[in-house]
Amino acid sequence: MTATFVIAQGGGPTAVINQTVAGATLEARRRYPGCRVLGALHGVRGIRDGNFVTLSDLTEAELRRIAATPSAALGSTRDKPDAAYCEAVLKGLKQAGADAFINIGGNDTSGTQAILRDAAGGGMAFLHAPKTIDNDLVENDHTPGFISAAEFVAGAFISVDLDFRALPGVYVGIVMGRHAGFLTAAASAWTLDEGGAPHLTYVPERPFERKSFIDDVKATLARHGRCIVAMSEGVADAQGRSLVEALVPPEMLERDQHGNVRLSGTDLGQAIERMLAEDLPGQRARVDTFGYLPRGNIATISEADAREAFEAGAFAVASVDKGSGSVALQYDGKRTACRLVALEAVAGKTRHMPADFLHPEESRVSAACLDYLNRLLPRRYDPAKPFV
Amino acid sequence: MTATFVIAQGGGPTAVINQTVAGATLEARRRYPGCRVLGALHGVRGIRDGNFVTLSDLTEAELRRIAATPSAALGSTRDKPDAAYCEAVLKGLKQAGADAFINIGGNDTSGTQAILRDAAGGGMAFLHAPKTIDNDLVENDHTPGFISAAEFVAGAFISVDLDFRALPGVYVGIVMGRHAGFLTAAASAWTLDEGGAPHLTYVPERPFERKSFIDDVKATLARHGRCIVAMSEGVADAQGRSLVEALVPPEMLERDQHGNVRLSGTDLGQAIERMLAEDLPGQRARVDTFGYLPRGNIATISEADAREAFEAGAFAVASVDKGSGSVALQYDGKRTACRLVALEAVAGKTRHMPADFLHPEESRVSAACLDYLNRLLPRRYDPAKPFV
Repeated sequence: MTATFVIAQGGGPTAVINQTVAGATLEARRRYPGCRVLGALHGVRGIRDGNFVTLSDLTEAELRRIAATPSAALGSTRDKPDAAYCEAVLKGLKQAGADAFINIGGNDTSGTQAILRDAAGGGMAFLHAPKTIDNDLVENDHTPGFISAAEFVAGAFISVDLDFRALPGVYVGIVMGRHAGFLTAAASAWTLDEGGAPHLTYVPERPFERKSFIDDVKATLARHGRCIVAMSEGVADAQGRSLVEALVPPEMLERDQHGNVRLSGTDLGQAIERMLAEDLPGQRARVDTFGYLPRGNIATISEADAREAFEAGAFAVASVDKGSGSVALQYDGKRTACRLVALEAVAGKTRHMPADFLHPEESRVSAACLDYLNRLLPRRYDPAKPFV
Repeated sequence: MTATFVIAQGGGPTAVINQTVAGATLEARRRYPGCRVLGALHGVRGIRDGNFVTLSDLTEAELRRIAATPSAALGSTRDKPDAAYCEAVLKGLKQAGADAFINIGGNDTSGTQAILRDAAGGGMAFLHAPKTIDNDLVENDHTPGFISAAEFVAGAFISVDLDFRALPGVYVGIVMGRHAGFLTAAASAWTLDEGGAPHLTYVPERPFERKSFIDDVKATLARHGRCIVAMSEGVADAQGRSLVEALVPPEMLERDQHGNVRLSGTDLGQAIERMLAEDLPGQRARVDTFGYLPRGNIATISEADAREAFEAGAFAVASVDKGSGSVALQYDGKRTACRLVALEAVAGKTRHMPADFLHPEESRVSAACLDYLNRLLPRRYDPAKPFV
């Protein structure tokens, strides 16, 4: 009987998520000659609806070209399958004759795989392959997609630093990160020198306080003549209210259909702009929302990230005969390698930045954090210091 | 007597403005061995205050490293010299023993050079070297700084297109451009295919109308399942009011010290988000403000742009014995070359996108515009089409 693999991509795309698909497909063909590899369109939705492409029909060259292309070639979904949905997915997998289902996504995806595994009751392997620009999966030293996004952010902040040395002022770059500040911390990865940007970093892991923020901006201006800030979209006050909720009048808050305050968007940027205009009147200040720009930018795909994403896919397929599990990128002090961990170990859990990644008193990252960043994204550029 | 050149950078920095400084300095040393080249810190302010660095003391390797670094190594200024300021600048030039002053900047800078030339009354050459990401200098086919910024924007829009094919919705990218839409038009330079992003383009050269915009977004969603929009910060309604003024309640508008509505910032993004939330309730929509990200991004420096910026600086020095003038990049149908034109020809004038660069009925760029963009920034990437 032909071995059949089903692969799906879920959640927000990254610059290297297609590498995982290619790695899985090529490994499947290597280990199981003549196998069928089906790619589900738009994640688990495609399995439920029977919409697949036959990845095993593609040549290696075609697969490698897809692999090098950012974002999810199979499409993705934000659907979070409940019990009924999982039943439909399981039915779809059985109809496809799947021996294994490899689902590429974040911690929710690992949870979906656990539910499906239990519902299937044996006879099918359920693998989770890691993926997120937020770097917030437990068991993983870092996650596929993070390094490329981090390179975008790091490059953007040294570029803005050079810009603001030429024409000084205040700049706030708002970076995605609802729960974890890793991507925002990446703004510091390539900082130019002692007085380099970002001067201040605000992440979800530490409560934001308006007066401290303004005081820090004023102190930075006094010291450096400019102030560049990296801020996560998910920063919250000491009560855990997102900054948007704390600063924007309730009647002006956008909410999604679940009643959750919409965080993605320019609300936070606007709120910060008003705050600066009120508390630092006349001070030139600019706020930009990086938004989706870092997450699959074709100009900043990291080779290391691409390689690790590919290997994660290959490892998922190589693990199929061990049963179900989550592929985790782990670092032993010398190198990163894939390990298989229990789906439950990853499902629904969020990794936050370690406490020692933030300076104990100041709003910036620590030396430990910079060491971590330097390991993942070594300096790529050697800009000359300006004369100003 | 030693030939003495003064160089300054003015206005917003670009990715290649230091190339112009290096080109001028190296050409000066080549043509006038033993000359002195002084770089003024923070533009004309440095000349007024006597703050210079001696560029002629740097090695070629140091100059080339500075040249490859984005943003203004000499610092810049937004000062617009009036008669008294110009007197002070002229005095500073005389004290420095300047034979020629090369000022790198936009159309205001050409005007400054004309005022100084007239006040000097002979004995000193005043050159203007072009620079702007907005591409809005008359007499120029395109301007140094534009191509690199355009490459950032073009790459960002195909990346977002791939992202939104995976997870469909509405996306609006707001691009700098107060008077001219060239940089916003660049979003279309590398569009993936017939149905590729951006689907809609809104620029200052064409009045924006809310109902048309919403109708166009709805039609695009119906046709493609997603809608990606490129919009200039400077879009205005039929009365010439900036969109921010038209959409934001007057009491909430930010104004600078001259009473001008502040355009740069997230105000427009917020206004567009609200518009979409009101007129397309429940539709997933995201607005990102590119802001300063395209203008000196270290990851997207165009080699062609760098070379032309370097040549503009060299040409400025080569033109000194002809007297004063503005260096213009002109295209003869085959190649781009520098020409010297009168300072008045460029001073204070804004080049808008040609009318035939926009589709006559639809909110998008024309084939003529795409030909222009393809010449300046040929496709750099070959992404695979997704399956969705």
